[in-house]
Amino acid sequence: MRKILIVNGPNLNLLGIREPEIYGSETFESYLDSLRAVYPEVELLYYQSNHEGALIDRIQETLKEDLTGLVVNLGAYTHYSHALGDALRMLKIPKIEVHISHIFAREAFRHQSVISPACQGLISGMGKDGYRLAIEWLLWRQ
Amino acid sequence: MRKILIVNGPNLNLLGIREPEIYGSETFESYLDSLRAVYPEVELLYYQSNHEGALIDRIQETLKEDLTGLVVNLGAYTHYSHALGDALRMLKIPKIEVHISHIFAREAFRHQSVISPACQGLISGMGKDGYRLAIEWLLWRQ
Amino acid sequence: MRKILIVNGPNLNLLGIREPEIYGSETFESYLDSLRAVYPEVELLYYQSNHEGALIDRIQETLKEDLTGLVVNLGAYTHYSHALGDALRMLKIPKIEVHISHIFAREAFRHQSVISPACQGLISGMGKDGYRLAIEWLLWRQ
Amino acid sequence: MRKILIVNGPNLNLLGIREPEIYGSETFESYLDSLRAVYPEVELLYYQSNHEGALIDRIQETLKEDLTGLVVNLGAYTHYSHALGDALRMLKIPKIEVHISHIFAREAFRHQSVISPACQGLISGMGKDGYRLAIEWLLWRQ
Amino acid sequence: MRKILIVNGPNLNLLGIREPEIYGSETFESYLDSLRAVYPEVELLYYQSNHEGALIDRIQETLKEDLTGLVVNLGAYTHYSHALGDALRMLKIPKIEVHISHIFAREAFRHQSVISPACQGLISGMGKDGYRLAIEWLLWRQ
Amino acid sequence: MRKILIVNGPNLNLLGIREPEIYGSETFESYLDSLRAVYPEVELLYYQSNHEGALIDRIQETLKEDLTGLVVNLGAYTHYSHALGDALRMLKIPKIEVHISHIFAREAFRHQSVISPACQGLISGMGKDGYRLAIEWLLWRQ
Amino acid sequence: MRKILIVNGPNLNLLGIREPEIYGSETFESYLDSLRAVYPEVELLYYQSNHEGALIDRIQETLKEDLTGLVVNLGAYTHYSHALGDALRMLKIPKIEVHISHIFAREAFRHQSVISPACQGLISGMGKDGYRLAIEWLLWRQ
Amino acid sequence: MRKILIVNGPNLNLLGIREPEIYGSETFESYLDSLRAVYPEVELLYYQSNHEGALIDRIQETLKEDLTGLVVNLGAYTHYSHALGDALRMLKIPKIEVHISHIFAREAFRHQSVISPACQGLISGMGKDGYRLAIEWLLWRQ
Amino acid sequence: MRKILIVNGPNLNLLGIREPEIYGSETFESYLDSLRAVYPEVELLYYQSNHEGALIDRIQETLKEDLTGLVVNLGAYTHYSHALGDALRMLKIPKIEVHISHIFAREAFRHQSVISPACQGLISGMGKDGYRLAIEWLLWRQ
Amino acid sequence: MRKILIVNGPNLNLLGIREPEIYGSETFESYLDSLRAVYPEVELLYYQSNHEGALIDRIQETLKEDLTGLVVNLGAYTHYSHALGDALRMLKIPKIEVHISHIFAREAFRHQSVISPACQGLISGMGKDGYRLAIEWLLWRQ
Amino acid sequence: MRKILIVNGPNLNLLGIREPEIYGSETFESYLDSLRAVYPEVELLYYQSNHEGALIDRIQETLKEDLTGLVVNLGAYTHYSHALGDALRMLKIPKIEVHISHIFAREAFRHQSVISPACQGLISGMGKDGYRLAIEWLLWRQ
Amino acid sequence: MRKILIVNGPNLNLLGIREPEIYGSETFESYLDSLRAVYPEVELLYYQSNHEGALIDRIQETLKEDLTGLVVNLGAYTHYSHALGDALRMLKIPKIEVHISHIFAREAFRHQSVISPACQGLISGMGKDGYRLAIEWLLWRQ
Repeated sequence: MRKILIVNGPNLNLLGIREPEIYGSETFESYLDSLRAVYPEVELLYYQSNHEGALIDRIQETLKEDLTGLVVNLGAYTHYSHALGDALRMLKIPKIEVHISHIFAREAFRHQSVISPACQGLISGMGKDGYRLAIEWLLWRQ
Repeated sequence: MRKILIVNGPNLNLLGIREPEIYGSETFESYLDSLRAVYPEVELLYYQSNHEGALIDRIQETLKEDLTGLVVNLGAYTHYSHALGDALRMLKIPKIEVHISHIFAREAFRHQSVISPACQGLISGMGKDGYRLAIEWLLWRQ
Repeated sequence: MRKILIVNGPNLNLLGIREPEIYGSETFESYLDSLRAVYPEVELLYYQSNHEGALIDRIQETLKEDLTGLVVNLGAYTHYSHALGDALRMLKIPKIEVHISHIFAREAFRHQSVISPACQGLISGMGKDGYRLAIEWLLWRQ
Repeated sequence: MRKILIVNGPNLNLLGIREPEIYGSETFESYLDSLRAVYPEVELLYYQSNHEGALIDRIQETLKEDLTGLVVNLGAYTHYSHALGDALRMLKIPKIEVHISHIFAREAFRHQSVISPACQGLISGMGKDGYRLAIEWLLWRQ
Repeated sequence: MRKILIVNGPNLNLLGIREPEIYGSETFESYLDSLRAVYPEVELLYYQSNHEGALIDRIQETLKEDLTGLVVNLGAYTHYSHALGDALRMLKIPKIEVHISHIFAREAFRHQSVISPACQGLISGMGKDGYRLAIEWLLWRQ
Repeated sequence: MRKILIVNGPNLNLLGIREPEIYGSETFESYLDSLRAVYPEVELLYYQSNHEGALIDRIQETLKEDLTGLVVNLGAYTHYSHALGDALRMLKIPKIEVHISHIFAREAFRHQSVISPACQGLISGMGKDGYRLAIEWLLWRQ
Repeated sequence: MRKILIVNGPNLNLLGIREPEIYGSETFESYLDSLRAVYPEVELLYYQSNHEGALIDRIQETLKEDLTGLVVNLGAYTHYSHALGDALRMLKIPKIEVHISHIFAREAFRHQSVISPACQGLISGMGKDGYRLAIEWLLWRQ
Repeated sequence: MRKILIVNGPNLNLLGIREPEIYGSETFESYLDSLRAVYPEVELLYYQSNHEGALIDRIQETLKEDLTGLVVNLGAYTHYSHALGDALRMLKIPKIEVHISHIFAREAFRHQSVISPACQGLISGMGKDGYRLAIEWLLWRQ
Repeated sequence: MRKILIVNGPNLNLLGIREPEIYGSETFESYLDSLRAVYPEVELLYYQSNHEGALIDRIQETLKEDLTGLVVNLGAYTHYSHALGDALRMLKIPKIEVHISHIFAREAFRHQSVISPACQGLISGMGKDGYRLAIEWLLWRQ
Repeated sequence: MRKILIVNGPNLNLLGIREPEIYGSETFESYLDSLRAVYPEVELLYYQSNHEGALIDRIQETLKEDLTGLVVNLGAYTHYSHALGDALRMLKIPKIEVHISHIFAREAFRHQSVISPACQGLISGMGKDGYRLAIEWLLWRQ
Repeated sequence: MRKILIVNGPNLNLLGIREPEIYGSETFESYLDSLRAVYPEVELLYYQSNHEGALIDRIQETLKEDLTGLVVNLGAYTHYSHALGDALRMLKIPKIEVHISHIFAREAFRHQSVISPACQGLISGMGKDGYRLAIEWLLWRQ
Repeated sequence: MRKILIVNGPNLNLLGIREPEIYGSETFESYLDSLRAVYPEVELLYYQSNHEGALIDRIQETLKEDLTGLVVNLGAYTHYSHALGDALRMLKIPKIEVHISHIFAREAFRHQSVISPACQGLISGMGKDGYRLAIEWLLWRQ
């Protein structure tokens, strides 16, 4: 069975809780359930943390897992965490960077991703669907 | 029947012709055929030009078309054509920016897109599959 | 009879068509008719193109015309087309740069005009009246 | 009777006095007389000072006047006086920024106007006629 | 017979016509005649356009020609046309960038060439002789 | 009796007059009355001017006064008046910089204070209460 | 009973321990005791961590608390932790940023706060009294 | 009799008063007396103001005086007052810029003089003797 | 017995595990064993974490230890963690910064160390031997 | 007999000695012999030094020589030696700057030439042939 | 007898020789004779070199001399020779930097002096008289 | 017998002579004697010059020597001498850059080394011991 890991970074644990009038009342966990229903043949692993170090630890653990690919949305760490960039650089599996909102249409500090050069690709601004597009692509690629 | 327009910019007419050892020998036209086979229920329109002005003209024409969405890969114009950015800004339909290679992992001048703020989303680095992902998303969205 | 040429650049062909609630439903062509009515003694020539090269061609043609002056609104080309700047630099007749909106009160990329050093003057932010002010001035000057 | 105020900033009191071979021997006061002759139906108020604070005071006083519009040429304060920018921002009447020479074709420090975002429009490089163009526009607008 | 293509960009069609007191009254076409007389054994092809897209089209066509080399003077496009840079990058034949005036001794915006990294060499400031030097070199190289 | 001087800079004389729907209809003078009522044991001196030079003069005069402290809100001069910075640097008494709005959450030019290095502290964004907080602190400190 | 949370960031746990000759020998905990004595009617919560992620976790928890306000001194994270900035942005309660030393009078890297735009106000340079001033203001505001 | 004007800018009225342990207890006025004793054959005029506008006014007045030269120390206005720069630019007489301390060995903001391009020469860091050196030079030059 | 602490930052736990063909198959732990064999008279303490906060905690703990010196390789945190810089600044013992690869010969973002000003010295590019050189020096210094 | 001087700067004495697999085993001296054979009617002078001052001395000596022209390749001094730039500026004879490799296609620091504004022209990237092209041009020009 | 050393840098050996129509035909040596005549009581030493290293050597030698002061005009080395800056920093005697032309009114690269922070003072733009002013000052100072 | 060359740049000849209270009274020569005593099995060559060109000459000579390694401290040339960088780049032997003081903790201009990318490693801030550490490492490496 193919395995794909989704790693979400800081403040993404509050999706569906804060500002429901904007983001809807669906939590990431329930979104994940719907994704699992769409891809029953894939084991979808999930990890979220607000801790940069914990995110590095989790990304390093994939070295011992047999993953089809990694989907990362590292929140604001995207813009300055060279340590997460280095952790991603170490992995040989395909890595896709996802952002729910369009980071290049927001404040200037969000226009730089220090993670991008360590990933195969980037999907930005396409809502939570960005995760599904990344999974589609990982499956097509095999 | 739903209609989606793909607009390709400068030098993309040579896909499959130049450097086949890298990009394969598939031209964009034959890739387009395979896309049409995957989405028989969608009318896939296609336009390519090396001319900035012709690209603006074609993008403006969509104002008279009833499109589900627009998928643009404006090649190197991405990095400096504010005129194309303004043309895209005028459209109300969903617009997705696609790049075959990962522009944020290449030369510094390719890290800036003046088109991004005028689009809903961006897919970079996922090969020609980026076009298909954009189409998937436009169809899910409806 | 005195002749004045107005040259409009990219996306200005859509004035009065896009966003009528903001810009009104008057097209540039009908605005031109009203201008011609105000200045019956002037032959008002008009050219619009989305093509940088076509705009250069048209500006070069003025070398063979006997114009009182040139009024240019080069849209987004204003901010990066050094080629249009060079074309204007070659002309000896008075050249006025017009912008309908106030470019210095908009996004940062619009604060730089590479056209300005090649023109006698600049009128920004005064709506379509900017064209009429430029014509007034060209006529006073004679 | 309509009233328009012209406010001139530092060193503009010497127009017609310094460098007459370049600027002519007409002082701003006598230019003002000719303007008043052209617009007998308008009360043209005039104020000049070399003092940033006095210029702010005068601009604030317009809050108690019933002006059709304000025409400002703030000389070199244009490039750094955020205090004058704030004073202009407070006014609801139309404000036009005028420069006799073309500031965008001179030294680099003159290419930035901190006043522009607080004004409706800008006229640069069209000589003293810039004032008259501003008045024309204020009258058309009514 | 060896073939060399010369491609001239925007405003270079006016050589010999504008400012004859500076550049002389020789047009590029008549200069070309004299070059052909010097190199009777070479087929000298020539193309000029003010259109960025047309220049890209022409450069791409060389993929179907059997050229000894390409000599380009892309005028002001030199400084911002990454699209032309990409077109040149695709060619395997020797490419020489020529500028008639010395671009590094003129305005700051002319000190950057986005074309240079795609060419083998650069000749700047040596007048129209720059073209002949480029041809000499292409012939020596064989 | 302890004495504290408040110095307000350009445009702050219009507090309560302009934009009452935002700032309320309380003038700084009446706010000052309420402050004096809260601190009957303190002599609260007040000075406002739109003139940079007059503000420097007033700040210099404190050298002859026996003040507990100085509270300054120099409006837009905050961002460029090195002359006011030098005047403050000369004083040995505690100096607190106050801004009613949060200058670091507004336009970029307001993010730099050339006054800060000459003061003991800064209070920004806490409304007119910022003045009272500064006074509290000056009194605690004794 | 009103509740206010103080959150201190990295290295602030060593106040009173390191460099007592400069900062005094009072620890933050004993300062907190004195604050609680001054405000017996307020429940003063306190949290300190050197861990960026733990600080985000704690700030998120306030969403479940009924706080009058939040007082944050995030130490050096102030200058680069966009993740903490995002966490603060999510909260609707009043947030005040405090710095014991005057960050704008120290090294250049301390002059930028990425936290400021997410807070209502900032108090810098007023020693530990900055915390008390923030509490005063939160209580006045109610 | 030859006349030389010395113009001192903001905060220089406090020489000899503030920080006498550093600058000595000699005021500029008494220094001026000693200068006059050294140059009995020269009429030494003196003006000091903290007001930018007053300094401009005074500099403009020299147009009506028959001066051998002007010696200016404009204090912190040196670094940003383009208005004073413009006033100096208008004068044809020799103008020397003097700074008592060595501005190029102090804070970075003092390394730029917007006044320098309008003066013949600059003397920095040589104490009050800088004024005397400037006078020497003006007398030699005749 | 002398004690020296080595602190390694993010991703350095994978030395010898990732990319053994480049870095060899020796883990840091076994390298540490060989170091201990070389310096039997020194107690070599070791700490590694991917967590910025945990690294700060560990560095703070040295305040309670009696160390001869500290050797730090903070990985990518080197380039942005001002919080770690502040933690190091607090220590009075000698601190040496080590990098295995030569950070000044790699990507531009690695050329800046915000840690350096808080350390006595820096050893870069000398492989794992950098740690031994640092220890040598700490021992010589006593 | 016409005389042309070639001046080579630092490290160019090692041409043909270092990295023969890349640059070939021909020394500059033997290349010079072949050049002299091609131009028997020209006296080709040659000077090389690693010393900036010696290069300035040699360039100054040309003031006493009757040269047709100067060909300079100043190696890495090209990028920072304003002193060599000043020396070249003093000469009235034609001066051509040559670079063997294409400096605009190498590291960023090599993209700036402080020598260029002092020369008539520049030839970059055309190998040792660049010297011959420069000589050709100097001879044509006569 | 007092001794003062003048050190002149690159290209200053050509004063009076190049461009006599501008600089006059007086060489620095004959200017030196006239200076010696003015100051018979001073031993005026003189050194000129185009070699940065030789200038450093000479400046270092002053450590063994008993000089009243040093007057340096380091020509273009002024703008980049940190090595000369370091040499000057080592000297305890008064050092004055002189420039014949006004470096702050010339090209941008001449506006920075890396020598200034190592000198007591700077005299720029006052012609060769700058040397005499420096000597005057050194003598007054004793 | 192994040979190692130490090359010292400008002003380092004065170690032990200037500022003995800071640097001690040991000259580099006597330090060298002590080094030679520590490493009797190594032939330690030494060269110092203030002349950039002489340093390049000496570094080039190593091409004819059979060295174990090179240790360079190029003083202030470190920060701008691309010519020395190029000379080092040509050598295949191990090269270590040493700085006695910690250049990254001093003035900003000393934070950039143009030499670093041409060396294997860098040791900064560890006093004269830096040379010994470099030698240790060169010997271990064999």
